Amino acid sequence: MPLLTEAAKGVYVIAVTPFLDNGDIDWTSVDRMVDFYEEKGVTGMTILGLLGEAPKMTSEESKAIAKRVISRAKVPVIVGVTAPGLAPMRELADSVMEFGAAGVMVAPPWTTKTDDQAYAFYTSVGDALGKTPWVLQDYPLTTNVTIAPKVIDRIVRDVPTCVMLKHEDWPGLAKISALRASSDKGETRRISILCGNGGLFLPEEMGRGADGAMTGFCYPEMMVGVVENYAKGDVERAHDIFDAYLPLARYEQQQGIGLSARKYVLAKRGVISSAALRKPGGALSPKDIADVERLLARQAKRLTEIGA
Amino acid sequence: MPLLTEAAKGVYVIAVTPFLDNGDIDWTSVDRMVDFYEEKGVTGMTILGLLGEAPKMTSEESKAIAKRVISRAKVPVIVGVTAPGLAPMRELADSVMEFGAAGVMVAPPWTTKTDDQAYAFYTSVGDALGKTPWVLQDYPLTTNVTIAPKVIDRIVRDVPTCVMLKHEDWPGLAKISALRASSDKGETRRISILCGNGGLFLPEEMGRGADGAMTGFCYPEMMVGVVENYAKGDVERAHDIFDAYLPLARYEQQQGIGLSARKYVLAKRGVISSAALRKPGGALSPKDIADVERLLARQAKRLTEIGA
Amino acid sequence: MPLLTEAAKGVYVIAVTPFLDNGDIDWTSVDRMVDFYEEKGVTGMTILGLLGEAPKMTSEESKAIAKRVISRAKVPVIVGVTAPGLAPMRELADSVMEFGAAGVMVAPPWTTKTDDQAYAFYTSVGDALGKTPWVLQDYPLTTNVTIAPKVIDRIVRDVPTCVMLKHEDWPGLAKISALRASSDKGETRRISILCGNGGLFLPEEMGRGADGAMTGFCYPEMMVGVVENYAKGDVERAHDIFDAYLPLARYEQQQGIGLSARKYVLAKRGVISSAALRKPGGALSPKDIADVERLLARQAKRLTEIGA
Amino acid sequence: MPLLTEAAKGVYVIAVTPFLDNGDIDWTSVDRMVDFYEEKGVTGMTILGLLGEAPKMTSEESKAIAKRVISRAKVPVIVGVTAPGLAPMRELADSVMEFGAAGVMVAPPWTTKTDDQAYAFYTSVGDALGKTPWVLQDYPLTTNVTIAPKVIDRIVRDVPTCVMLKHEDWPGLAKISALRASSDKGETRRISILCGNGGLFLPEEMGRGADGAMTGFCYPEMMVGVVENYAKGDVERAHDIFDAYLPLARYEQQQGIGLSARKYVLAKRGVISSAALRKPGGALSPKDIADVERLLARQAKRLTEIGA
Repeated sequence: MPLLTEAAKGVYVIAVTPFLDNGDIDWTSVDRMVDFYEEKGVTGMTILGLLGEAPKMTSEESKAIAKRVISRAKVPVIVGVTAPGLAPMRELADSVMEFGAAGVMVAPPWTTKTDDQAYAFYTSVGDALGKTPWVLQDYPLTTNVTIAPKVIDRIVRDVPTCVMLKHEDWPGLAKISALRASSDKGETRRISILCGNGGLFLPEEMGRGADGAMTGFCYPEMMVGVVENYAKGDVERAHDIFDAYLPLARYEQQQGIGLSARKYVLAKRGVISSAALRKPGGALSPKDIADVERLLARQAKRLTEIGA
Repeated sequence: MPLLTEAAKGVYVIAVTPFLDNGDIDWTSVDRMVDFYEEKGVTGMTILGLLGEAPKMTSEESKAIAKRVISRAKVPVIVGVTAPGLAPMRELADSVMEFGAAGVMVAPPWTTKTDDQAYAFYTSVGDALGKTPWVLQDYPLTTNVTIAPKVIDRIVRDVPTCVMLKHEDWPGLAKISALRASSDKGETRRISILCGNGGLFLPEEMGRGADGAMTGFCYPEMMVGVVENYAKGDVERAHDIFDAYLPLARYEQQQGIGLSARKYVLAKRGVISSAALRKPGGALSPKDIADVERLLARQAKRLTEIGA
Repeated sequence: MPLLTEAAKGVYVIAVTPFLDNGDIDWTSVDRMVDFYEEKGVTGMTILGLLGEAPKMTSEESKAIAKRVISRAKVPVIVGVTAPGLAPMRELADSVMEFGAAGVMVAPPWTTKTDDQAYAFYTSVGDALGKTPWVLQDYPLTTNVTIAPKVIDRIVRDVPTCVMLKHEDWPGLAKISALRASSDKGETRRISILCGNGGLFLPEEMGRGADGAMTGFCYPEMMVGVVENYAKGDVERAHDIFDAYLPLARYEQQQGIGLSARKYVLAKRGVISSAALRKPGGALSPKDIADVERLLARQAKRLTEIGA
Repeated sequence: MPLLTEAAKGVYVIAVTPFLDNGDIDWTSVDRMVDFYEEKGVTGMTILGLLGEAPKMTSEESKAIAKRVISRAKVPVIVGVTAPGLAPMRELADSVMEFGAAGVMVAPPWTTKTDDQAYAFYTSVGDALGKTPWVLQDYPLTTNVTIAPKVIDRIVRDVPTCVMLKHEDWPGLAKISALRASSDKGETRRISILCGNGGLFLPEEMGRGADGAMTGFCYPEMMVGVVENYAKGDVERAHDIFDAYLPLARYEQQQGIGLSARKYVLAKRGVISSAALRKPGGALSPKDIADVERLLARQAKRLTEIGA
């Protein structure tokens, strides 16, 4: 499998972890999920991220999931390897690269407070990872660490293996503009920027120079449609598609029940066998389900109206 | 002006504070804004909230704004009086009630950690405020204080002057359901619940038993339309209106530039003379303005399509 | 009264706010407290800080306290003027400078995340305050804002009215060393550094180049003794005095009851009439009082042993 | 090895993780450290805690350390097994109990906000751990989760395998008093309470009814001396010993460099071969070392004076 580079574009969907109702990993659904994402046109996948259910797995399970997804996937796979120390980070990174991952992703520790600390952390990450290409995960809402654009520029300049930014600052539009201004002026390398935040700002992010999305909304068709139409210059069409999915995408952004909603829809679409979350984890109430069903019905109607 | 009661319904719009370009309060725009909100059908107004620019004013300015808005308004006005001590809270509350406010609103201090601490704080608020009716402002995203439904129930049971919940937990749908279940069973008084979060979950919140909205989106028509249609049972129409405004409402939820976007639109609509924020405060970049203009154009088109 | 300058040294004690048991300000104790601090050898006083009970006062009370303390004091008085906007900050600063304050103190807003944001905030503070000398309050434990030494250097270089750092990072010894290295090399002005944190690291802070203390321990004799002995080169004597007071100083550092303990001791020493905190505020339990009494007895014995 | 029970008393020292200068685990020092702690009179050890360097190890290394320490130790060993999910928590717990651990320790997830959530979390922990006795780790400063005494009482009542509280609230004296009042009245079981916070409040905590300490200060003699003298009723002697060590204990409480100071002293005492922290981790500067050396010299002198 080729390694991740600065040229990466499109949609790297953040995969869920399918479990059976009893909490065991559902390997059949893992395979079906990989196939489903590829059928819907994603250009890559990201697994073992900060959110989701990766932290609920044992380290053996994490590696087994990574191995299975990477073996099955025809598209590049990025693996989250964030850890409190460089040793466990490198160990996981080495394992998954051996399995055939395209690259790894690293978020900063919550103790990062100043520009210099963020820079120092990521240069030590670069040292520890050797030749493995990696993604800088900028995710202030969860990590509580804000990394200014000029600090990212400095990291990009000094650490050649940093090839992508998972962009998830909120608001983050000005950040994309600032990073692209730097690379347009030739002050830094131009790296790939893929955006998160559930895709809630995807059209505007594309407008600022993002290369695509890295997020997990249960209709990857939305991200693929927005990114492709933007890429070919049809901005209004990109917005039309986005707007049709927005009510559901917004519903999925509720911390706590969002992941349950995502799995509910994926199960309903036949992708995974069970919508169950591993413990500790919630479940949709009947009222939540009624909300989701109404949104799905309205979404289907709207998609028909716009011919998507 | 009649006092606020548990029967309050509809849309209490959170008013912006209009400034001239030089940072002075723009009194002409204050008056025009009050008239505008009333023309659009709001049932009340809320001023001096936690966010927005109220904290940037001197205490004399705050009182002057409260006096002006209350004098001008034909609808009830709620005034935020959150303060680090009971003495300054009561002082401001007494002043604004004398001006004719309908009630006041109080958020918990960030030092509140346990159920008992939240209960103790709000019973002391009730004591301090005497007969003044007040709104419990539940706003975990900013205050970092989560108040469980059963704690709110306990406060409502023991403090008769607590007549409204400003609901802004995220996710908060289950919270509304829980509170309504308690009052439906007769375990507590049924108080008014008005929802915030920029209106981003308003149709679903109405579905759970909310009485309306308390938020500041630049098109109060959205909140009024959703609430009115829900109230008369036309749920799909409520969603249609909501969906048409959602792309812009979402854009306004960007922390930092959201308020600039709101003021930009209100200035464009002729409500306030200047979109300027008082220092320290940002401004929209040309790219932000282009985003907003595109969203406004698309919104106008979509509203025409649905006949709204 | 002369204005605060970079040459400030010694102990600027953070004054408590004396209340009567009914919560009213105790003006007689205010005067007695000012005299007490001066008798114990402080070189200045700081009022209306972030902690303590200043936020519990109305704005009129705050100004009245500032006026009373400044009129009474023979030593320079610094007044905390931190506010969410530049307008209320400047208004309070102008008032207290007119009363005769030596300077004002400003902490950063909690929204400050990056080096550039901290720099931008303090340059705008410098602009807003005109010629008034001011203290940069660096207090990460409460404000959650960490300002790197090189950012402080940048502010000091560009804003000539910044004359003092209230140092309260924890750990902060390396920060003092870094700031002194910059000024020793002539890269920045040498400003005054006074240290907080309840005095818990005062001898070591003096060893790194601090000019003294700005904190509120109920025995200002401790800070005065440590600073004076350090200044004349008797480091071991400074430590002897420090160690004798440390068990009580540590007890005062308990968030929540620390201030009650401080007021209990000040009342016992005859400085203030009542140990009461204004609402909302706790009180020492009988067990807390027994703890404090034991520490006071042991402290008196130890002070006798070392001849202090 | 017998299992942990509610009767546990004394000092469970939190062990450091010894590394060689190159970052590898230093197994020789691991053994020597176990022997050293036992010679100094500890009644137990705790490994793989939240702080320290346990998170920097791979999961294989963590298990290997646990196995080695448990095999070597003649006293009971408690192992931290906090994890984001019940599955990895149970997996580690099962492993270490098989090695012969006396029990495990679990901190709450940072998403815990309300009383009911804390209760629900710990009942699910009890379910997941089966018969394994466990320690409730109450550590608000790091986890940002505050658990009220009555919630702990409720957990203790309903989950018989909860046998100990690692107490680390700050301030926490009133919490111990409240918990002991409940068990004295027979409302709950009396569980063991061991206190953390670097031992900085140990004499007062013993006075409130704590059974001992669980913390990692580089002189376990301090904790042993305080706990033993308190147990036999010699409160003043307990304070004398405490006061002699307090200046150094305070220095060790500096977040960031505290662990470096602890390892520096342990290396100087011949317990571990290298003071090095595994990456990422700091090191003492020459000025820090001078501080520590001065404190050690003064401590030795003071210990001689009091005949300890």
